Amino acid sequence: MAKKTWGGRFKEDADELVDRFNASIGFDRRLYKEDIQGSIAHCKALTKAGIFTQQDCDRVIEALGQIQQELDRGEYPDERAYEDIHTLVERALVAKVGELGERLHTGRSRNDQVALDVRLYVREAINRIRSLIRETQRALVEQAEKHSGLIMPGYTHMQRAQPVLLAHHLMAYYEMFERDWRRFGETLKRTNVLPLGSAALAGTTFTLDREMMARELGFEAISANSMDAVSDRDFILEFLFDCAMVMMHLSRLSEELVIWSTEEFGFVTISDAFCTGSSIMPQKKNPDLPELMRGKTGRVYGHLISLLTVMKALPLAYNKDMQEDKEALFDTVDTLELCLEAACRLIGAVTFNGEKMKQAASNGFLVATDLAEYLVRKGVAFRKSHEIVGQLVLECLEKGKELHELSLEEMRSLCPSIGEDVYEWLDPAKSVERRNLPGGTGPDAVSQCIQKAKEELGL
Amino acid sequence: MAKKTWGGRFKEDADELVDRFNASIGFDRRLYKEDIQGSIAHCKALTKAGIFTQQDCDRVIEALGQIQQELDRGEYPDERAYEDIHTLVERALVAKVGELGERLHTGRSRNDQVALDVRLYVREAINRIRSLIRETQRALVEQAEKHSGLIMPGYTHMQRAQPVLLAHHLMAYYEMFERDWRRFGETLKRTNVLPLGSAALAGTTFTLDREMMARELGFEAISANSMDAVSDRDFILEFLFDCAMVMMHLSRLSEELVIWSTEEFGFVTISDAFCTGSSIMPQKKNPDLPELMRGKTGRVYGHLISLLTVMKALPLAYNKDMQEDKEALFDTVDTLELCLEAACRLIGAVTFNGEKMKQAASNGFLVATDLAEYLVRKGVAFRKSHEIVGQLVLECLEKGKELHELSLEEMRSLCPSIGEDVYEWLDPAKSVERRNLPGGTGPDAVSQCIQKAKEELGL
Amino acid sequence: MAKKTWGGRFKEDADELVDRFNASIGFDRRLYKEDIQGSIAHCKALTKAGIFTQQDCDRVIEALGQIQQELDRGEYPDERAYEDIHTLVERALVAKVGELGERLHTGRSRNDQVALDVRLYVREAINRIRSLIRETQRALVEQAEKHSGLIMPGYTHMQRAQPVLLAHHLMAYYEMFERDWRRFGETLKRTNVLPLGSAALAGTTFTLDREMMARELGFEAISANSMDAVSDRDFILEFLFDCAMVMMHLSRLSEELVIWSTEEFGFVTISDAFCTGSSIMPQKKNPDLPELMRGKTGRVYGHLISLLTVMKALPLAYNKDMQEDKEALFDTVDTLELCLEAACRLIGAVTFNGEKMKQAASNGFLVATDLAEYLVRKGVAFRKSHEIVGQLVLECLEKGKELHELSLEEMRSLCPSIGEDVYEWLDPAKSVERRNLPGGTGPDAVSQCIQKAKEELGL
Amino acid sequence: MAKKTWGGRFKEDADELVDRFNASIGFDRRLYKEDIQGSIAHCKALTKAGIFTQQDCDRVIEALGQIQQELDRGEYPDERAYEDIHTLVERALVAKVGELGERLHTGRSRNDQVALDVRLYVREAINRIRSLIRETQRALVEQAEKHSGLIMPGYTHMQRAQPVLLAHHLMAYYEMFERDWRRFGETLKRTNVLPLGSAALAGTTFTLDREMMARELGFEAISANSMDAVSDRDFILEFLFDCAMVMMHLSRLSEELVIWSTEEFGFVTISDAFCTGSSIMPQKKNPDLPELMRGKTGRVYGHLISLLTVMKALPLAYNKDMQEDKEALFDTVDTLELCLEAACRLIGAVTFNGEKMKQAASNGFLVATDLAEYLVRKGVAFRKSHEIVGQLVLECLEKGKELHELSLEEMRSLCPSIGEDVYEWLDPAKSVERRNLPGGTGPDAVSQCIQKAKEELGL
Repeated sequence: MAKKTWGGRFKEDADELVDRFNASIGFDRRLYKEDIQGSIAHCKALTKAGIFTQQDCDRVIEALGQIQQELDRGEYPDERAYEDIHTLVERALVAKVGELGERLHTGRSRNDQVALDVRLYVREAINRIRSLIRETQRALVEQAEKHSGLIMPGYTHMQRAQPVLLAHHLMAYYEMFERDWRRFGETLKRTNVLPLGSAALAGTTFTLDREMMARELGFEAISANSMDAVSDRDFILEFLFDCAMVMMHLSRLSEELVIWSTEEFGFVTISDAFCTGSSIMPQKKNPDLPELMRGKTGRVYGHLISLLTVMKALPLAYNKDMQEDKEALFDTVDTLELCLEAACRLIGAVTFNGEKMKQAASNGFLVATDLAEYLVRKGVAFRKSHEIVGQLVLECLEKGKELHELSLEEMRSLCPSIGEDVYEWLDPAKSVERRNLPGGTGPDAVSQCIQKAKEELGL
Repeated sequence: MAKKTWGGRFKEDADELVDRFNASIGFDRRLYKEDIQGSIAHCKALTKAGIFTQQDCDRVIEALGQIQQELDRGEYPDERAYEDIHTLVERALVAKVGELGERLHTGRSRNDQVALDVRLYVREAINRIRSLIRETQRALVEQAEKHSGLIMPGYTHMQRAQPVLLAHHLMAYYEMFERDWRRFGETLKRTNVLPLGSAALAGTTFTLDREMMARELGFEAISANSMDAVSDRDFILEFLFDCAMVMMHLSRLSEELVIWSTEEFGFVTISDAFCTGSSIMPQKKNPDLPELMRGKTGRVYGHLISLLTVMKALPLAYNKDMQEDKEALFDTVDTLELCLEAACRLIGAVTFNGEKMKQAASNGFLVATDLAEYLVRKGVAFRKSHEIVGQLVLECLEKGKELHELSLEEMRSLCPSIGEDVYEWLDPAKSVERRNLPGGTGPDAVSQCIQKAKEELGL
Repeated sequence: MAKKTWGGRFKEDADELVDRFNASIGFDRRLYKEDIQGSIAHCKALTKAGIFTQQDCDRVIEALGQIQQELDRGEYPDERAYEDIHTLVERALVAKVGELGERLHTGRSRNDQVALDVRLYVREAINRIRSLIRETQRALVEQAEKHSGLIMPGYTHMQRAQPVLLAHHLMAYYEMFERDWRRFGETLKRTNVLPLGSAALAGTTFTLDREMMARELGFEAISANSMDAVSDRDFILEFLFDCAMVMMHLSRLSEELVIWSTEEFGFVTISDAFCTGSSIMPQKKNPDLPELMRGKTGRVYGHLISLLTVMKALPLAYNKDMQEDKEALFDTVDTLELCLEAACRLIGAVTFNGEKMKQAASNGFLVATDLAEYLVRKGVAFRKSHEIVGQLVLECLEKGKELHELSLEEMRSLCPSIGEDVYEWLDPAKSVERRNLPGGTGPDAVSQCIQKAKEELGL
Repeated sequence: MAKKTWGGRFKEDADELVDRFNASIGFDRRLYKEDIQGSIAHCKALTKAGIFTQQDCDRVIEALGQIQQELDRGEYPDERAYEDIHTLVERALVAKVGELGERLHTGRSRNDQVALDVRLYVREAINRIRSLIRETQRALVEQAEKHSGLIMPGYTHMQRAQPVLLAHHLMAYYEMFERDWRRFGETLKRTNVLPLGSAALAGTTFTLDREMMARELGFEAISANSMDAVSDRDFILEFLFDCAMVMMHLSRLSEELVIWSTEEFGFVTISDAFCTGSSIMPQKKNPDLPELMRGKTGRVYGHLISLLTVMKALPLAYNKDMQEDKEALFDTVDTLELCLEAACRLIGAVTFNGEKMKQAASNGFLVATDLAEYLVRKGVAFRKSHEIVGQLVLECLEKGKELHELSLEEMRSLCPSIGEDVYEWLDPAKSVERRNLPGGTGPDAVSQCIQKAKEELGL
């Protein structure tokens, strides 16, 4: 590896293994735009502080612009030649503007420089991911609106529980993603803070205008403590946690899609374009997409625990361990973007088999709770009514009937207060309609939720 | 175990093992106040909905008040007799008000009831923890103010890097805890939402006034989707993550206290009252407190990954797996409260050995960066000045000198532009004073930080 | 808290909070038998080394025996009075035998003492858990034998794939548990090592006969390095990992039981005694047991990551952080024992609905692979045959037929080499019979597996 | 992407996103040797089963050999063209031998094929890692032998505890790695099992000779159950755990090296070639290597939790989620190999500063335990002697003396039985010599450990 930026005090060259071990260029090249963006702001601050002339400043900024274009085009491919992206950019700059390039690092350390680059990177990642969450929510709302009247079984413990609207079920995911979207917004606030000026750990002796740099780079605030600024990876941890939450939600949705597309459930058909086959079993059509989304949850959980482990018990200020933040971060960003893109495509591509869902909602005593609540209205205490209906269900099981197939006499023998009007309490559609309190599965309540959602989405 | 609240449909009694496996009373008894508080609000909603008369309402509320006092006194000790705290309270209520007690569960399920109880519990836990964070911050600010002029070595990679103020170092932790305090505040918003009315998963057919219950219980909002409301544990996960962040910060502080109290560093003395000895080695005085805090980080990380694992790929709505949320939550709350209490006590009880710190700041070339920045001011490009100083350090190492012990000639031989004024750049106290840019370790900058902190703390 | 065993060098009493923070008696009381067992062996070694007379030895051993009985009976309940179980036992001993009790700690430290106690504890836990694994395997083998001819759909990607024997499916879990059983056996070897004699970290100056103590306590070896011996928690981590693997396997089995007991699958019925109901929905019968087992996986994963976190980057030798090993360990042992007990009960209590399984195996083209392999036998290359069968499946889907319902002409139009003998390749029972290669689902192959299993189980 | 191996049944082409999401060629290309090796064995089994002629067999094996060479040379670079490495190899084979290549997949599925490839890969990884562990152990033994007489402070709680030999301290790590080496050996047994013949999940109808394939591929056994064989990732989890344990041990060693190379400790000097500098602070020389090793612990912990999460609650048999096993595995292998290589280089490159260590062992009352054990020999009960020495230490602290600087009178005033011979108990070198019981830090005991180690290492 070529000359280091820090070699003066060293008598021996670094061991080749050490170079390989230390080098981050293999993954931090991804930060080149952020690095150049930060260098431009730093350059302006040096100019304002009188270290650079305006002419120096213009030359450096122009050269940095060229380097960005070169990197866009894939130039500087030899990763073995540079320790990290900061060295690469500085080396390229010196090649263009000579000794002026060597002066750019004045009042700056790699410690605050890398903190800056990663903050810029996470900021943009959050923005992209929030957009993708919004798209996923839109896909959910569209399917919810499209199937506004479709009744399906709601489950608890994977057992049929009560009839619900498919739209209501889908909108539950909308709410999860809404929380995710907001949580990312809060992480953004803590991310969007300028560390430049912190230098190695103590701040610099040059009077850099930190507020100006913050404005220049679109940061909302400047860091309050230089030692904290160079050793703080909280914003990455928060980001990884926020991503883990999205993946957890996606894994729940994926699990349902996998189960719903079994032959046994048959609630959804995923179009051929979103499935794959088997190399040996010719009949297979596998829901690989939701399976992979579900599986990738593990990857993001792992990255979170990885960085939590790294940061545990690290003394102040910067320690090299922190270099381990980046690969976990980058892979998480890639995974999230891919999964969210897949999720919104997939949600849109699912066909719901309404007939099958409706039929399932009609079998298995899903209206038992309605019947119990009917009895309450007839003056039976809830615990008592619960028990009566439990016994009616047992009777049905023995006779192979559903509740609405019981005669009035059969019902009255257990509870004389039951009247003819009971039958309209045993219809799944009616059951749903009765639940129009806010947040319930009733059509009006769901419709209001969809309306609220569309406002949140700006639709 | 005694009669269940759900036995009507069952022919066989539950197996003893199943009872033991399912029962949550062993740990959810802790939620009794929340459960009673929620029942009171539900009772009022039933009254407004016309299911209870005002007289019913008054009787139930009075009886619930008595039950709370009984539970405060440790009555109902037999945990084998109840499935969970909800059953215990209901059973006690029925014993007091008869059939009326059996009617209280109208329009409610354990699914929304337990969601409510845990939300109330987490809300209070957040409030207590935020107070403890504030106290910890106060302890830091006090020590920072008390030692405002004390200079110590700042470290990176555990190697002496630059002189900093101890106050600056301590205030770095203040900033970490400030982020924690804010993060908990955001989690609070998402926690402080009423799930009641969601019933099992679909909402209830009774027209419960959810907004009224929310006001009654101090919630800021009502849940928007009943299926989400009963299957959402996001707020617990957020809370566990927030706690993991605090523990990570405490582990960093603890690590420093452990290292600083070694004979080799000798920067701090922890008072006898906060140390323990050895059963075999009579001379030992061990910093158990920071060690345990550091160790307990693992416990909280573990609880976070535990619940993330539980929630992965769970289909909607409620599944019994979710019962596993509580023990992890309770142990995390206990751990956090204990650790924060210990932290603020410990921070206050530490004696800083100023002489040792100051001396350490004077050895090991910590002003090398100042010298390089001095050279920049003399017109040397930063990379060049960095290299020159590196060589001067090498020379010092060979001669067994510190930088300020070099003669002007020795320095000039490497860089002729060095002048007599160089020596005031080689004084650690001056080094610190030069870093008064915002966020730097300069006395004025640190003083402003402390000022800001005191405002945030309301001091 | 009462007098410490280490107070000589201390001027101030410990802070009450510190006592509370440090004390482990709240959870390590569980180790009293191991502590006493270890003290007896240590006592004998002191006697052999001439520090105790034989009379001393007899008195101490007798008194320790009494203390064990007292602790069995729940005496010494005041946990605030002792720092840890070692102190409690020593204090009780001194009360009985006076100054002799104060001499028992000669040549021993709490560091090696606690290492010893935990090793004894883990050894017994492994033995119990291995027995429970064997019982679980027995339950699987019994069900496999009982349903030896039952055909069901085998799934990949949760899609019906090929017909398999239920016995084959169950025996897959047998194999998982067999690996678990062996893995615990290997962990046992590394656990079963005597640390006594290591004292605080450097060994003792007394010539304790470590080999004799090892024999006395049933250890296979003595630790080779005293610093390692007091700071090694590898055996606990291994144990936690082994437990995590069992839980992972149980979670897979549980997931299948939950899915199989849905109305949609209907493959199994879990007896009432192993299910619970709903407080609101009278018809519900929920498979709580497998759900909880699945959920408890998170808890054990969490404990593993917890201790891995604790041990990360701990310098030698003992550090107080290590005290955090115990609660994670104890809860894991309790969880595993409960879950395995539940698993073998549950496996025995499940009713398989053979008719439903068989019918499911007949629908969904599960014999498509057989058809493709038939074509290979007729000289078609496998990739080609796979494609032909894929097209036949498409045709079936369009016509609403199964493969065996296609006429010979319909099949021949795509592949003329198909003959009349094709139909016996389209029968699920025949499909299974053809897979008698070792490890396959053929009845003979499965029968051999069961035979091997019974030998392993000593049946 | 080009034609799939499974397209017959599909009407629509796969969506581009789905292709991107599903494709594993980006990372499983690494398995090409294993894939070809497995295909050769499968080819021989097909030949023995009469599906291939010997001529077919020879052609296929020759062609596979060519493909391996081509892949060695980096041919087939277009990753977008293939779904996975299996498809790539098959496609290349068909290009060389035509329809014969399409017949190779007879009786095989990607499910057993990928299980095979990964088992071969893990087997070789274990072998390489075990060799590297042996090299690391050798480096430790060499340093231990080289510094056989060097005395240093042994620490507990990071406080000076007792004098120990550096060799003893180093050999503690030898023991940790010895456990690791054995653990990997056991994982190897469970890895080295042939899954081929399991096909998709049920076994194949062709009479493949599995025992022959096992011998051909060097496996010790064949899998006992086809459903288990295709859905088992236990061996990868075990491997990841074994790696996590090595990393934990390396993190402990790294932490010590970081602390020992602080200016404050000064116990070791790491050669320039193994350190790096700072871009801003010219004097810095940072121990990046041990820091990075310590940090990379998080990465491996993360991969372990990642795959544990993936496997949680997956029903049988293969699910696409399992594809997520590979990247975690590959990165772990790369990390372990790099870290172990670095560790043994680093251990060899460390200079121990014997004078500084020895001096540190003489300050801080490290012989207090010896003094207490001396008193026991004079007839004082251990608890009493512990207390007396504690008070002598207090007295020393007040007088600013070490224990050996106390006069006999000073000592006798607290304990009259102290004699002139006490002073030889207060010499660190003598303290070490007295601990020659097996496993102790005495020179003979350590020497025996080194001897045992050399035998284990074959030196």
